[in-house]
Amino acid sequence: MVNRKKIAIIGVGLIGGSMALQLHEKKLSSLLIGVEASKEHASQALEYELVDEFLPLNEAIAAAEVIVLAIPVNKMVHLLPRIMDQVTDQIVMDMGSTKASVIEVLKQHPRRGRFVATHPMWGTEYSGPKSAVRGAFEGKAVIICNPNESDADALEWVKKMYGKIGMRVVEMEAKAHDLHVAYVSHISHITSFALANTVLEKEKVESAIFEIASAGFESTVRLAKSNPDMWVPIFLQNKDNIIDVLTEHIDQLTKFKESIQTDDSGRLQALIADANKIRRIIR
Amino acid sequence: MVNRKKIAIIGVGLIGGSMALQLHEKKLSSLLIGVEASKEHASQALEYELVDEFLPLNEAIAAAEVIVLAIPVNKMVHLLPRIMDQVTDQIVMDMGSTKASVIEVLKQHPRRGRFVATHPMWGTEYSGPKSAVRGAFEGKAVIICNPNESDADALEWVKKMYGKIGMRVVEMEAKAHDLHVAYVSHISHITSFALANTVLEKEKVESAIFEIASAGFESTVRLAKSNPDMWVPIFLQNKDNIIDVLTEHIDQLTKFKESIQTDDSGRLQALIADANKIRRIIR
Repeated sequence: MVNRKKIAIIGVGLIGGSMALQLHEKKLSSLLIGVEASKEHASQALEYELVDEFLPLNEAIAAAEVIVLAIPVNKMVHLLPRIMDQVTDQIVMDMGSTKASVIEVLKQHPRRGRFVATHPMWGTEYSGPKSAVRGAFEGKAVIICNPNESDADALEWVKKMYGKIGMRVVEMEAKAHDLHVAYVSHISHITSFALANTVLEKEKVESAIFEIASAGFESTVRLAKSNPDMWVPIFLQNKDNIIDVLTEHIDQLTKFKESIQTDDSGRLQALIADANKIRRIIR
Repeated sequence: MVNRKKIAIIGVGLIGGSMALQLHEKKLSSLLIGVEASKEHASQALEYELVDEFLPLNEAIAAAEVIVLAIPVNKMVHLLPRIMDQVTDQIVMDMGSTKASVIEVLKQHPRRGRFVATHPMWGTEYSGPKSAVRGAFEGKAVIICNPNESDADALEWVKKMYGKIGMRVVEMEAKAHDLHVAYVSHISHITSFALANTVLEKEKVESAIFEIASAGFESTVRLAKSNPDMWVPIFLQNKDNIIDVLTEHIDQLTKFKESIQTDDSGRLQALIADANKIRRIIR
């Protein structure tokens, strides 16, 4: 059993809102306090009953036993130290998609132990409280970074909480995390954005796309609907890893281009056979 | 009502097999004859009862009222003229992913009118008769190319048949078709293959990918499991259009790379806002 706690969610959008639904559903919360910079999001979140009430940040910190940050990663590195300054024995956790920056910004903080750095590997291309999903996160992995830097009790509660939500906990150093997610998440978003721009740029008769676009196209391009406010800061915070992966990806595309240009069916066959090995990784 | 016909399916793989299932399900066939170069595929197709019997090509042509070709597009341009040489009043249709080449190769054929060039916009990343899907094609678009070059009765039956299967018929000239599908299908496969190679190339600890890969990654990379025997010929036959789209796509990726490298959050924001316009096209 995990004790129910009074939990403040800072940022009640897609991620924070979906988390709020799960915290209630799995009986992990006795009270859910929202903190929202956007009045529109706050009123939507109340309408959908994602949280019990909204409070100003300082009051929410004082009232909560657990503080969950689900805000864009650029805002995270500014707000998190300010929150930690006010924390006594609360547990603080973030849900951001980059980890090296938040770990770095708290490195010397006297209350560092109260913080647990987490990244649940779940999201959708939609945003805002209206996009919150019941049963989100279940069956997915959650990465906890630099667990040794967190107090034992804080780490234990966060792990049990994620376990109860149905997530597999994977522990990793922040630098390794940022490298891995560049490959399995960030690059997917960039290729999808770029693919959307390619098609929108070149295809003048959009009705034709609309008519004939199939499931394969939709599958590769759906992430292009994702919110820039979330993704611009991720790309900039994870710049070095992303540039490496993007460079490699452009090289790989160039191999396809050269093989097609020179009618080199043998090389194309080999490139695709290599790509087919992804079957080992995604069933 | 569409009269049931004796139908020969040349190539009983993913597409031909799924078509056979639908032709039976929708009461469009009185007899389903398979023609298969692969003994293994033929025995699988019989095991799954996709067709009633297998016959050698010449016997199948003679016995059938409708001949459906569902073979790789490089084999199509060689086999189709030979089949047309033996046709009297049968209806012949293909289901290939490129259209200019087949239209061209039959241009001067005396029986050209018996042929209907079609491309149903449905497929999966799997192949072979074991991957055939019940209810395939339904709710998707099918493109019929250069309909004026087909005899009225042949065109009518093919349109009614696709209508009964639940497809929306879109008519288009072959050149326009090949351009459009380069954008909405072929490029998606190339980005997916290249993304798989990027990740497999750079990511040494594969277990980490396996652990943390999320739905977004899977969505952008699943087409990378597709069969090279089908896709190499498509890329080579649609070479000019694909090179154009690939060049544009690499340019778009390079814009992301430059913006990230120079920390240009304004430009990144604008690029993503542009990409978000894909919402107009895929709901």
